[in-house]
Amino acid sequence: MHFVRAFDQQILNSLLSHAGPSGTVADVLDWVKQRNRDVVVKINTTPFRDLRGWSFDPGTGNLRHDSGKFFSIEGVHVMVNDGHRREWMQPIINQPEIGILGIITKEIEGVLCFLLQAKIEPGNVNNVQLSPTLQATRSNYSQIHKGKKPQYLDYFQNAKRSQIILDQLQSEQGARFLRKRNRNIILTTQEDVPLSDEFRWLTLGQIKALMKHDNIVNMDTRTVLSGLAHHAFLDQLGICDFNAFIDHAGVSPMGRDLFVSELALAGCHTIDDVLFWLSGLKSNYELLVDRIPLRDVKDWQVGEFEIARPDRRFFRVIGVEVVIETREVKMWCQPLVEPMQEALCAFIIKKINGVYHFLVQAKIECGNFDVVELAPTVQCLTGSYKGGDADKPPFVDYLLDNACKHVLFDTKQSEEGGRFYHEQNRSLVVEADDAFPEQIPENFVWLTLGQIKEFLRYNNYLNIQARSLIAALDYL
Amino acid sequence: MHFVRAFDQQILNSLLSHAGPSGTVADVLDWVKQRNRDVVVKINTTPFRDLRGWSFDPGTGNLRHDSGKFFSIEGVHVMVNDGHRREWMQPIINQPEIGILGIITKEIEGVLCFLLQAKIEPGNVNNVQLSPTLQATRSNYSQIHKGKKPQYLDYFQNAKRSQIILDQLQSEQGARFLRKRNRNIILTTQEDVPLSDEFRWLTLGQIKALMKHDNIVNMDTRTVLSGLAHHAFLDQLGICDFNAFIDHAGVSPMGRDLFVSELALAGCHTIDDVLFWLSGLKSNYELLVDRIPLRDVKDWQVGEFEIARPDRRFFRVIGVEVVIETREVKMWCQPLVEPMQEALCAFIIKKINGVYHFLVQAKIECGNFDVVELAPTVQCLTGSYKGGDADKPPFVDYLLDNACKHVLFDTKQSEEGGRFYHEQNRSLVVEADDAFPEQIPENFVWLTLGQIKEFLRYNNYLNIQARSLIAALDYL
Repeated sequence: MHFVRAFDQQILNSLLSHAGPSGTVADVLDWVKQRNRDVVVKINTTPFRDLRGWSFDPGTGNLRHDSGKFFSIEGVHVMVNDGHRREWMQPIINQPEIGILGIITKEIEGVLCFLLQAKIEPGNVNNVQLSPTLQATRSNYSQIHKGKKPQYLDYFQNAKRSQIILDQLQSEQGARFLRKRNRNIILTTQEDVPLSDEFRWLTLGQIKALMKHDNIVNMDTRTVLSGLAHHAFLDQLGICDFNAFIDHAGVSPMGRDLFVSELALAGCHTIDDVLFWLSGLKSNYELLVDRIPLRDVKDWQVGEFEIARPDRRFFRVIGVEVVIETREVKMWCQPLVEPMQEALCAFIIKKINGVYHFLVQAKIECGNFDVVELAPTVQCLTGSYKGGDADKPPFVDYLLDNACKHVLFDTKQSEEGGRFYHEQNRSLVVEADDAFPEQIPENFVWLTLGQIKEFLRYNNYLNIQARSLIAALDYL
Repeated sequence: MHFVRAFDQQILNSLLSHAGPSGTVADVLDWVKQRNRDVVVKINTTPFRDLRGWSFDPGTGNLRHDSGKFFSIEGVHVMVNDGHRREWMQPIINQPEIGILGIITKEIEGVLCFLLQAKIEPGNVNNVQLSPTLQATRSNYSQIHKGKKPQYLDYFQNAKRSQIILDQLQSEQGARFLRKRNRNIILTTQEDVPLSDEFRWLTLGQIKALMKHDNIVNMDTRTVLSGLAHHAFLDQLGICDFNAFIDHAGVSPMGRDLFVSELALAGCHTIDDVLFWLSGLKSNYELLVDRIPLRDVKDWQVGEFEIARPDRRFFRVIGVEVVIETREVKMWCQPLVEPMQEALCAFIIKKINGVYHFLVQAKIECGNFDVVELAPTVQCLTGSYKGGDADKPPFVDYLLDNACKHVLFDTKQSEEGGRFYHEQNRSLVVEADDAFPEQIPENFVWLTLGQIKEFLRYNNYLNIQARSLIAALDYL
């Protein structure tokens, strides 16, 4: 049962608006491109010995900040009882703090707008991307280390319950982070919000349109927005009102079908079916993850410039000196994780009994908080699908053969530029053709959009790649 | 949204039946008492050096089985940023496997019956208690170690999806186990189920009645049954049919009010309010738990006979030789955890706007899977509420002063006798009087029974003490 809140209709209207106080989508795109040109970001690869503020711990070999804050690069020893790779060691990012990813919204000129920042991150392929109003680690917001108080932090620290549109704990990349989660918050305000240069008010529809361009909307914005549900308002409409609303708002036929899927809390399976299936998988899959010193990680070498595998697979850790030249010059050093290949993340969707279902995979990743999380149909590094057949995950061929009926979405989207260097992954949502196999492996399930949103509500069910794709769904 | 399944009505009818194929409640009680008299269980405290099959690891000092299986007693170093005790070390049970707690149900003579076992566990204060059809560790059911295949295991391993009434992953005691969870399963069958001597078919109503007696229904049975929800069937009734059903079934006035509370998915707060509140608490509370060698645990001493604190607080670990004399004699050795005091677990409930709400506490425990779990209003060791005021948790005085309006439930219930020695805790559900303070601490919330059941569905929200009390709610 869901309750219509004052802002449920506002969110829906914003979702269906391509114009707002910052102009058209093209205007916003021009502004982001202009900022990209204005900013000079120099990334100098630096030998670890010159990485100011960072050093390898003499005992463990872990790469950590001298303050003990921020994050560290450590090792894990992983054993699983499934898949072709049953045991391995790898470096992992350990950042045992829950950060805040927060967006302020406000009704402006009759439409709810989301305050985003054109933010510079050292790992971005372009320099700036649209990030949430606030991205803060606990160290940032508790002011443990020196440095300015993050802008707009007060709005989150002083928020009343009635202002909260969304407040979820969600996971980060389970293959890279050790059980890392962030608090995803959206709040609404009627107060004045002073606007700094690099901030803009955007409608939700504009943000969706911007996601159709490569690497404009950053990962943090995508994960926060993925949690927004739209069915509380639609649910109260009768079928006639629903149709009238759809027609009046200019919703596309696909958008209408997505709304119908979001209204369906039962599909091929009930929520309980899915919960029971997950209990079985979590019980039967064994995932043992032990933190180990980085120096004990086999198959990886700590070199002068990188921590990498001799076979150049997966990723490497590099040290960089970051120089950002705007009005003032900022410089710092930090490690970044650089992928060795591009990844592919894709949802295959299909109408079953007239309602779109998403083919969802329960995927084990070593940094997962709870054994498996719900992942896109395909989530793999390019290397693994170009490699031998033994490694090839299900449905990759189907995607690469372009056998699908209809491509809803196909762009490159970046991982978080504060930790990942030039990591952009191909993100796809495609509709399966009628010949698509009904038979799916036991760790896959067909879910309606309504069910996906229900699992999002309860936190820690959908992984960040799945959430990123869900955030990209557009209704116009 | 919930879907009425074929067995939803069967479960409700069973809940409201005091008679079944095993006779009356008194008959079942006589049978359990008889079995208690028939069985001789000798527990001989044994110095650790004589604990056959168990030894202290030379490196870590951890107490473990020579096979590496079962469980081990290790150490943890805990840091939290809340409460009067911010940092400590303690021994903890590490058993990184998900066990199965399973109950088979079958319709017999027109009523759905639950197959329970009068099972001997070494730590039970009496010898036998009613346990689920199957209690199996992964070692048991995957047959890694020698030993007979557990009875009835096949029913669970071969179950079809359509037979599953419930399948949840739920936590065990967070102060004693390191992130331990069990899979709680209830399935239904129409096959013949051969009945061994120590098994009986009981209705749900009978089991509830038996919980009003001290130490008859074991912890594992209570946790499995706590997950059963009754509102899917009631939900579809109009108010007239609901009232007719209540009258016809002999439901007590309190039972009616509990059904009404279970039908309420919104109360003082919506589910989203509660989820947002939990996100905030999980983000703001910091719980750092590091596994450490048992030999490094400060303030605890490993003696010849016990691992304990010199101040005799909390609990101690002892070694026992268990001798069970039935037709055959069974002997084995194992460690058991013995509490130093009796504990008190209590829910305070109160009608708010005509609907019962349960006062629920978000409680940090060091073995919790996710920082805080929803716990009863009061959950504490006797020592802490008889101790100084600084330690005294909220609402303890209210309970001990007998200021409440009405006691629904007040018995002693045991913790699991396979791990805990003579641990019986006072379990209470009481209705607050009208003078009960409206003001509650920030880590407390009023939830309807429907909301509690909804959180049970999504796993790992309610702790074992809360689930045990919820299981005891009776409607007759």
